[in-house]
Amino acid sequence: MTFDPIAIIGAGAVGAYYGARLAQAGADVHFFTRSDCAPIRAHGLRVQSFVGDFTLDSVNVYDDTAAMPKSKLIIVSLKATAQADYVRLVRPVVREDSIILCLQNGLGNEQILADAFGADRVLGAIAYTCINRVGPGEIAHTAHGKLRIGEFGSHSVTRAEQIAEMWRRAKVPADAVSDLRRFRWHKLVWNIPFNGWGAAMDLHTEALLATPTGAQLVRDTMQEVVDAAAALGMTFEPDLIDDQIAKTREMAAYQSSMQLDRQQQRGMEIDAIITEPLRQAERAGVRVPLIRTLDRLLRAIPSRG
Amino acid sequence: MTFDPIAIIGAGAVGAYYGARLAQAGADVHFFTRSDCAPIRAHGLRVQSFVGDFTLDSVNVYDDTAAMPKSKLIIVSLKATAQADYVRLVRPVVREDSIILCLQNGLGNEQILADAFGADRVLGAIAYTCINRVGPGEIAHTAHGKLRIGEFGSHSVTRAEQIAEMWRRAKVPADAVSDLRRFRWHKLVWNIPFNGWGAAMDLHTEALLATPTGAQLVRDTMQEVVDAAAALGMTFEPDLIDDQIAKTREMAAYQSSMQLDRQQQRGMEIDAIITEPLRQAERAGVRVPLIRTLDRLLRAIPSRG
Repeated sequence: MTFDPIAIIGAGAVGAYYGARLAQAGADVHFFTRSDCAPIRAHGLRVQSFVGDFTLDSVNVYDDTAAMPKSKLIIVSLKATAQADYVRLVRPVVREDSIILCLQNGLGNEQILADAFGADRVLGAIAYTCINRVGPGEIAHTAHGKLRIGEFGSHSVTRAEQIAEMWRRAKVPADAVSDLRRFRWHKLVWNIPFNGWGAAMDLHTEALLATPTGAQLVRDTMQEVVDAAAALGMTFEPDLIDDQIAKTREMAAYQSSMQLDRQQQRGMEIDAIITEPLRQAERAGVRVPLIRTLDRLLRAIPSRG
Repeated sequence: MTFDPIAIIGAGAVGAYYGARLAQAGADVHFFTRSDCAPIRAHGLRVQSFVGDFTLDSVNVYDDTAAMPKSKLIIVSLKATAQADYVRLVRPVVREDSIILCLQNGLGNEQILADAFGADRVLGAIAYTCINRVGPGEIAHTAHGKLRIGEFGSHSVTRAEQIAEMWRRAKVPADAVSDLRRFRWHKLVWNIPFNGWGAAMDLHTEALLATPTGAQLVRDTMQEVVDAAAALGMTFEPDLIDDQIAKTREMAAYQSSMQLDRQQQRGMEIDAIITEPLRQAERAGVRVPLIRTLDRLLRAIPSRG
């Protein structure tokens, strides 16, 4: 089964990698990127990956989505800092049978696309991976890489399984899941403390866990996420927090994407990773004072973007 | 009137500067410093000051307070990170008529000395100045310099005025004040937000005030300090917060001492600047959630010291 043509709206590191894998496997992929359009057009897209390097020499790349073909599968991989732009950028590539797959961090992104284009055509994907842009048109995929894909508006796995199968044929591990929302919250258990405190305090994972006070701060923040998820009807494995702390201790000192954005004075994905979870938690009646504090501190950090 | 011999317990930047001014004016001053004892003994104490440079070539300097003469005036200018050490370091220089002047930041330092040596011999001094150690035995005094001196255990100004007069003869502006505690809290209105958030978030003054959220965070934190002081019986000028924000905006981007300590992974003066004010505020029944958060975050930051 084919989803051609495929639009990648936002060829940052993640969008470029997962789109490039599809193109390499023969799909008809079209990339939108403002910043890297010229270098990719001139020199192609170079992927250094621990599962195999490759270069796409001739890439369909655009700096304006109005110039792109209307697409069957639209993968939205814009950074979740400019939610106001999603709809405007996606609209030109939408056709009657388009499926929109939101490959972004945090909460709230699918809702924006569902409100504009209808929930029945929106799915989400969660990427468990380490991918960085190392230069113009050049990305490095250094670890992991799995995708979990699920419907936004239902528990059906039919379409998600078809999309997962497309990626599996392109050397990307991918699963369909029936409860996307639960996996989004599950990932937030790590993302909220380590992206949040990491950026607010400019401390990498090892530093955040180096003192008993810091480790307890991370744990208490994780507990707030678990409590909020429980109030919203989602339960996780009982040893999740211990497990996440232990696995994070095993990693080298790791700077979260939000900490890197802060250091570069780029916009941070505060809305999706902090504010929308906070809003859902408080609407469910859960007190989450640490997440509320994070929201405030992160918005106090100046950025250029 | 003379206070000779004078002991400076802790010849960091502040202790070295105010002691060196007294020595230059002819007083019999003895300095304790572990880190800079050898360089000061070898090369003297060099002071670059915007009110006049000078060098003390021959300095009475010690790396052990047990070797120092028992002193009439004992100036404690140790960094307020090792409160447990104060009493042990001061005891060898105390004689029957010693006066102890606590020239340190924040709250709680005088109490420790009063508990050990009697409140009736303890005074405090607040330094309004910019002084940095720029090398071994070398300090730079770049702005301001005034001292406010008051009794810890009474409202008398007799002794404080004598000490102030000694410094005024040594080119140091100095006033006696009848309510030391009120001036300590007054200074905390600036110190708690700019040292606290500056260190917790690693942001200088200009960055903390650059966003509306950041400026409001600073204001709300200042208001907590003002409210705590009011509950403890101290009132300040009504426009204090506006005035401090305005003056801080006029300064260049300024890194507080606690932010510098954090960047160098040195111990921070959390007890004196955050924890003791927090304790006094909460004991007075005032809710100070931002100060409580600061206490927690600062204790989560790893240091080597």
